Amino acid sequence: MKSIKVNLGRRSYYIVIGSGAIRCLSGLLRRYLLGYDNAYVVTNAYLYKKYGSLLINTFKAAGIGIKVRLVPDDEKAKSLAVAGSLLGDIAVFSKSRRVFIVAFGGGVIGDLAGFVAAVFRRGIPYIQIPTTLLAQVDSSIGGKTAVDLRQGKNLVGAFYQPRLVVSDTDFLKSLSLRERRSALAEIIKYGLIKDRSLFVYLERSLRAVLGLKSKALAFIVRRASKIKAQIVSADEREEKGLRTSLNFGHTIGHAIEAAGGFTRYNHGEAIALGMLVSSEISLRLKLITPLVFARIERLIGKAGLPVKIKGLKLNDIIRAHYHDKKFVGAKNRFVLLEGIGRFRVQENVPEELILRAVRQRM
Amino acid sequence: MKSIKVNLGRRSYYIVIGSGAIRCLSGLLRRYLLGYDNAYVVTNAYLYKKYGSLLINTFKAAGIGIKVRLVPDDEKAKSLAVAGSLLGDIAVFSKSRRVFIVAFGGGVIGDLAGFVAAVFRRGIPYIQIPTTLLAQVDSSIGGKTAVDLRQGKNLVGAFYQPRLVVSDTDFLKSLSLRERRSALAEIIKYGLIKDRSLFVYLERSLRAVLGLKSKALAFIVRRASKIKAQIVSADEREEKGLRTSLNFGHTIGHAIEAAGGFTRYNHGEAIALGMLVSSEISLRLKLITPLVFARIERLIGKAGLPVKIKGLKLNDIIRAHYHDKKFVGAKNRFVLLEGIGRFRVQENVPEELILRAVRQRM
Repeated sequence: MKSIKVNLGRRSYYIVIGSGAIRCLSGLLRRYLLGYDNAYVVTNAYLYKKYGSLLINTFKAAGIGIKVRLVPDDEKAKSLAVAGSLLGDIAVFSKSRRVFIVAFGGGVIGDLAGFVAAVFRRGIPYIQIPTTLLAQVDSSIGGKTAVDLRQGKNLVGAFYQPRLVVSDTDFLKSLSLRERRSALAEIIKYGLIKDRSLFVYLERSLRAVLGLKSKALAFIVRRASKIKAQIVSADEREEKGLRTSLNFGHTIGHAIEAAGGFTRYNHGEAIALGMLVSSEISLRLKLITPLVFARIERLIGKAGLPVKIKGLKLNDIIRAHYHDKKFVGAKNRFVLLEGIGRFRVQENVPEELILRAVRQRM
Repeated sequence: MKSIKVNLGRRSYYIVIGSGAIRCLSGLLRRYLLGYDNAYVVTNAYLYKKYGSLLINTFKAAGIGIKVRLVPDDEKAKSLAVAGSLLGDIAVFSKSRRVFIVAFGGGVIGDLAGFVAAVFRRGIPYIQIPTTLLAQVDSSIGGKTAVDLRQGKNLVGAFYQPRLVVSDTDFLKSLSLRERRSALAEIIKYGLIKDRSLFVYLERSLRAVLGLKSKALAFIVRRASKIKAQIVSADEREEKGLRTSLNFGHTIGHAIEAAGGFTRYNHGEAIALGMLVSSEISLRLKLITPLVFARIERLIGKAGLPVKIKGLKLNDIIRAHYHDKKFVGAKNRFVLLEGIGRFRVQENVPEELILRAVRQRM
């Protein structure tokens, strides 16, 4: 089993990746959560039905007591109300026990359970066992936890690192094609901002990845996790601008997601479109060549991700873009490309240019 | 105006103390919150009636926009529901503004507003303007923020440091005698664990303190703040055991507070009784002399704080004590005295001894 370290001094932790990684859990818990003898597992009914007995047996074998809490299988679970209900539950469960939290699921469950762990008694340990490709390569790493408010997504949260991430690629085999494709958007992103060879690998081996070949899955999860771990290690709380690179495609991507009411395009599809817009801006600013742009557009298309924005109005996207203020102090801030594997952060991109780049996709 | 630094690297901040300190706010904001131009002020109706126009004028003079949010004037304000309501409010208020939060009030408001600042967008700046003696010498310093659950007090929170604490001792002049006395318990605590000369000062100048003489107030707030700042600087997150000393009198104190349903004794009164129990244990373990014990009991009595537990059952106190687990891994943990100004942490104090020491106070 391969492992990758997230270097954060006393808050460092490992990401253990591979087919069957969950079978190492017992040893890992003894090593990284010594003395914590009860697990409060947050998951959903679908996953519990599928993997419940595996989980129970795994924790039992490790001598760990377990309490399972099911939450809704969608963004609705990321509310203060659900968080409050979990917190009350944990208050009772932890009365005479040393409890840690287990986030067993995708990004929604990771964000919610991580937030609950961050604030219960000002922080108790938690581990991430991501079951989706998107969670394995992105949200489970880096300690960004959050719940939503009626007023907007992820408005309430904390930076709070897990003690351990276990990415068992076998969990990925039951993902739908749309989920796999959506996750690929983030993996393509890592290639574009930081890892040319990952991008080239995807160009060559897309079929194996989408076909869920074990080796291919383990390879891309490892590469993507490594990049995310490096960036988080260098800029834990997004204070140094390094973590900004992870927003490549996200500025416009979020706007597209929001303009579609979070239903028309899922996160990965919106990010794919956002990356194309940012690449278009990079091209028009002559930061990349038409050939590089063509390769990006081709890979995104081959991955089965959208290359055209359909059914949305330009105005709605632009309005949502100005609502999603990731750029305090400047008019806007874009992560642009200087080539495959190289990014730059650019503030105050001319509005005319943004408009044209978005319109190009419609 | 005197100021004390809390040394926490990039999270360092100043506590500005003295009569009329609030008049320095404008300059302080320019210095420590540059670029934040809107204040979301959390306070209660009583304080707003008394100091609302002062606040509004002060922020106006500093060129800062202001939105005031009133919360209930008691522990009820420290709920997830109230926090959620504030968070929604701030989400709207901060849409096109750079907002910081102002906790204007006592410990309840500080804990609530600090928690909201900690989790809104994973942390926005906040300042503390404590208006009670207890908040000035204790809760406003150190970044312990929290709200309550039905299952227990302070179960949900974060360590999150303010950018600035402004302790204007003029606010203390409207405190009731009971509030002043209650706060004295924590100040006596600082003397007992860390500052013999503060204890001696209180023995000599108690009348000036209770009589709200400006010089005496400024002196004790400064001394107590300095001790709290030192301890927090050395052990921000209670990981090194140093901050444990601040729990002197609190283990049994909390149990007395809880056994009385949080109404019979207020926090300071319960802590006074808890300090006497811990001093009694210290005496019986021959860590302090009968003379030292007598001085402690005399000062607490002279301060108008209770020296006997009335109307509570021994069993209720003991049960509440075991419910309030600040001591994972050991049977119990007490901060004991080795003299005035010197403490030690002792685990596994014999139960018989605890029982006797509590019974001695009944």
